[in-house]
Amino acid sequence: MADANNRRSVRRPSIDDVAKLAGVSRQTVSNVLNGRKSYFSTQTQARVMAAMETLSYKPNRAAQTLRSRRSMQIGYHMSGEELEIVKGFTLSFLQALIKAAARQGYQILVFTHSDSNPLAVFNELIARGNVDALIISESQVDDPRVRLLAHGKLPFVSFGRLAPDLPQQWVDIDNSDGMAMLMDYLVAKGYGRFAYIGAEGDEYWKVERLHGFRRALEHHGLNAADGDVFQGSGEAIREQVRRVLGRRQRPDAIVTGSDYIAAVVVNVCHSLGLRVGRDIAVTGFDGGAMGLITEPTITSVRIPLEKVASELIARCQAEIDAGPTGRPGVVIPTEIFQGGSA
Amino acid sequence: MADANNRRSVRRPSIDDVAKLAGVSRQTVSNVLNGRKSYFSTQTQARVMAAMETLSYKPNRAAQTLRSRRSMQIGYHMSGEELEIVKGFTLSFLQALIKAAARQGYQILVFTHSDSNPLAVFNELIARGNVDALIISESQVDDPRVRLLAHGKLPFVSFGRLAPDLPQQWVDIDNSDGMAMLMDYLVAKGYGRFAYIGAEGDEYWKVERLHGFRRALEHHGLNAADGDVFQGSGEAIREQVRRVLGRRQRPDAIVTGSDYIAAVVVNVCHSLGLRVGRDIAVTGFDGGAMGLITEPTITSVRIPLEKVASELIARCQAEIDAGPTGRPGVVIPTEIFQGGSA
Repeated sequence: MADANNRRSVRRPSIDDVAKLAGVSRQTVSNVLNGRKSYFSTQTQARVMAAMETLSYKPNRAAQTLRSRRSMQIGYHMSGEELEIVKGFTLSFLQALIKAAARQGYQILVFTHSDSNPLAVFNELIARGNVDALIISESQVDDPRVRLLAHGKLPFVSFGRLAPDLPQQWVDIDNSDGMAMLMDYLVAKGYGRFAYIGAEGDEYWKVERLHGFRRALEHHGLNAADGDVFQGSGEAIREQVRRVLGRRQRPDAIVTGSDYIAAVVVNVCHSLGLRVGRDIAVTGFDGGAMGLITEPTITSVRIPLEKVASELIARCQAEIDAGPTGRPGVVIPTEIFQGGSA
Repeated sequence: MADANNRRSVRRPSIDDVAKLAGVSRQTVSNVLNGRKSYFSTQTQARVMAAMETLSYKPNRAAQTLRSRRSMQIGYHMSGEELEIVKGFTLSFLQALIKAAARQGYQILVFTHSDSNPLAVFNELIARGNVDALIISESQVDDPRVRLLAHGKLPFVSFGRLAPDLPQQWVDIDNSDGMAMLMDYLVAKGYGRFAYIGAEGDEYWKVERLHGFRRALEHHGLNAADGDVFQGSGEAIREQVRRVLGRRQRPDAIVTGSDYIAAVVVNVCHSLGLRVGRDIAVTGFDGGAMGLITEPTITSVRIPLEKVASELIARCQAEIDAGPTGRPGVVIPTEIFQGGSA
């Protein structure tokens, strides 16, 4: 008995010791350790933290992982434009994701697929068990990756909405509402002759941003000539800007589908001798660092990526802990970032 | 015996079957499968591939991993500016790394550290064994991460040189030479009054780029006034551009330490009514997508990130396969990307 006590006094304090001293259950200590904030009050947290401090308790992540058979890794699939095109948005999102994951003790496994068999890598990840959950983005609504994952046991969450017959594990923004809100802002500032330049492609977010633009024009009793609505890429965007600004009756505001396009437009306007924010307004969509490079900075619809990333990780964690939640998808509100360009 | 033959005829073909049909050793098939290109000729590769095709052989990655106790994951540590600042360079590098790793069957585990104990995550990764090797960047030459890793059994490679008493597992570019090469180009084009704007901080690559600038001035018998050499960030950069361009005898070329700074400078020049590439030259360093946003695009020292990433992965793989190689570090040559800005 004395022996046992001695041994006890030199061994590392356990999670049970912490629970006992704090007067809470083992599960509560685990919740605090894993940052499951909806499961404990700040008072409880303080009590648990104080007990850990008193006992010099250090959670052993490796042992936790072994016990729980968790990898403490969340996979993030990078594909298409995300892997090929340098967009500040992609990096900002990844940075937010890595930080949100780290706050909960997770690391991000970034992976891509082979072109010959795009879905094979998902089957491999499931078979190898090296991620506890998956996050995808650039979803196609009816996404073959999700069709595959919906039948598996691996939790997943999509940044981008999913078809109604798929699990509603998604976080998204309302592209159309965000754009309409920006248009209200522009109309209130006195702008009335609009052109639109968006990225080419029929991804729903590109379609919805343009839809928000058209909806707002209608709402305000305005219209844009057919030639003033354009979707394209690269040099075609630069040509379109020169074309619409070369007209006798030129637009007073160029609304774009992304900060990247807005930055290109601002540069072309400058090269034509126009003062952006005074002679011509230019707006973006994303609200990230890209819009801060230009002079003036870009007024934009801001996607709150920190909130999006935290929600994605929280949803992964909920399903890792407790299995399918059956929760509906969630729409995170956008904001207007007011730069100098409009 | 007939029974055994029957069983044999329905089981999946093995790596030994492929070796036998191709007339090569089992190890050679393994080398081809794992893309260890220095170990086989293109003829051997073709023979092995043909045998795999004939037998419909599919390598079983999960089984391979279990047998070899490899995770097929390479860790990449993101820290500091990489996680906080949106630079096209960071994303381009990560994209190149993910693609180079995928070509060799590896995935990239992106992780960061907790501020309270920055090295703990490295000990954790070693203990958990969930990466086969580590890649770090933004190295400090005498890097505490490397001091830790140098004593462990985990292969690692640094993008950025390491102190001579550390293992020389690094890939880098020559910042000073790259900048001097660009200066030669500018002098040959007739520019003669230079100003320099670099990022603040004493990281060696920032120091070396400025050193390359000064070295080239001296080489060409030129000099820059003290006020024309500047290191700073944010609004201070914009102010510096306005200051040097407001002088009676203004520079005819603004050389910068990164494409990001160059893009800001181009924008400020435009806002002052100057035509970049005609009234004033502006150059960058990196040669990535950031320099393609501006009008005109940015002339820059290009870091060949695909080559850097391939070399990093190849070095990881060599040590995963065969233990410490004792190889010296390698310097990848830079190139000049000729945009419209100079």
